[in-house]
Amino acid sequence: MKYPQTFENLINGLKKLPGVGSKSAERMAYQILNMDDEDITKLATSLLDSKEKLTRCKKCGCMSEGDECEICKDNTRDTKTLCVVQSTKDVYALEKVKNYNGVYHVLNGVISPSLGVTPNDLNLNKLVDRIINDEIKEVILATNPNIEGETTALYIAKLLENKNVEVTRLAYGLPVGASLDYADEYTLIKSLQGRRKL
Amino acid sequence: MKYPQTFENLINGLKKLPGVGSKSAERMAYQILNMDDEDITKLATSLLDSKEKLTRCKKCGCMSEGDECEICKDNTRDTKTLCVVQSTKDVYALEKVKNYNGVYHVLNGVISPSLGVTPNDLNLNKLVDRIINDEIKEVILATNPNIEGETTALYIAKLLENKNVEVTRLAYGLPVGASLDYADEYTLIKSLQGRRKL
Repeated sequence: MKYPQTFENLINGLKKLPGVGSKSAERMAYQILNMDDEDITKLATSLLDSKEKLTRCKKCGCMSEGDECEICKDNTRDTKTLCVVQSTKDVYALEKVKNYNGVYHVLNGVISPSLGVTPNDLNLNKLVDRIINDEIKEVILATNPNIEGETTALYIAKLLENKNVEVTRLAYGLPVGASLDYADEYTLIKSLQGRRKL
Repeated sequence: MKYPQTFENLINGLKKLPGVGSKSAERMAYQILNMDDEDITKLATSLLDSKEKLTRCKKCGCMSEGDECEICKDNTRDTKTLCVVQSTKDVYALEKVKNYNGVYHVLNGVISPSLGVTPNDLNLNKLVDRIINDEIKEVILATNPNIEGETTALYIAKLLENKNVEVTRLAYGLPVGASLDYADEYTLIKSLQGRRKL
């Protein structure tokens, strides 16, 4: 016996969510039948709203509800220091530690030949414009410490070579709380190369 | 920094889904930002549709798109045999094995003093009416083999005592493919008590 079409549609819709397979989607759909009407309406509305209201900040590319995100609007921030990250997620990760007061530039991706992502797919033109127009002093490259992130960081460093701006990269090394004998080879090498005077 | 309200609403909406905690909801919400507009609209619509179009069959209580479910509408089924289950899920589980051609009655719950579910909360009045009006010959009690399911089965058996109908219960025993030494004590006892001549 087949499920009613409405129920089948619901399962198919839920399956599109990340990490939700056929079985979980089915379980969720059954649970949704028992949910409050209000909760369902709220979820449906928030889905449609997210599509409609959430855009990218015209300036930095971060997720935003208006043309400009909260950080770009905030005039207490140091607009001469720019941190380049892969995604909005990383902006929130860095903001959580409350240790950085500059502004951001969100690439919304990384160079990845295997996934067919080229520099043209990234939010890079605006980055160069910003650095020139806003007279940025330092660009911190905060892409992920993996092959794609590293490639992207090197590409950007090259791009900014003659732009009269200091380009830095987040430090590699041992994560706090880790032990030496569990660290992988490359991390150990990087932590030796990056050693600092105490 | 707080998330934009729209994004926060989306996370809160997703958190209401079964098995979705704060972290998964956040991950899902980020992914939804990158989803096709069409997929999002479809999911939102199917959520609203499920609320609007999916009701319970007026006859048996199973999930249905109209007043009557597919099984109750199907006139090739044996309407003298009635299988009582806890939920719509169980109807689909039994239909999958294609070994039963009778009709169903969905209780939409089980008696559970700890959760405050009493016989009055279940779809029981209609069950008695059906048995009398439709001249049911056999009622198969197919509630789950646990305390709540057992209690509910016994309650229904009592309720139908003088209704001139045969009341049966699904067999307890070893699951096919299992091994004796892994079976729990009660299952072993039940499988001994229910032994059959070969």
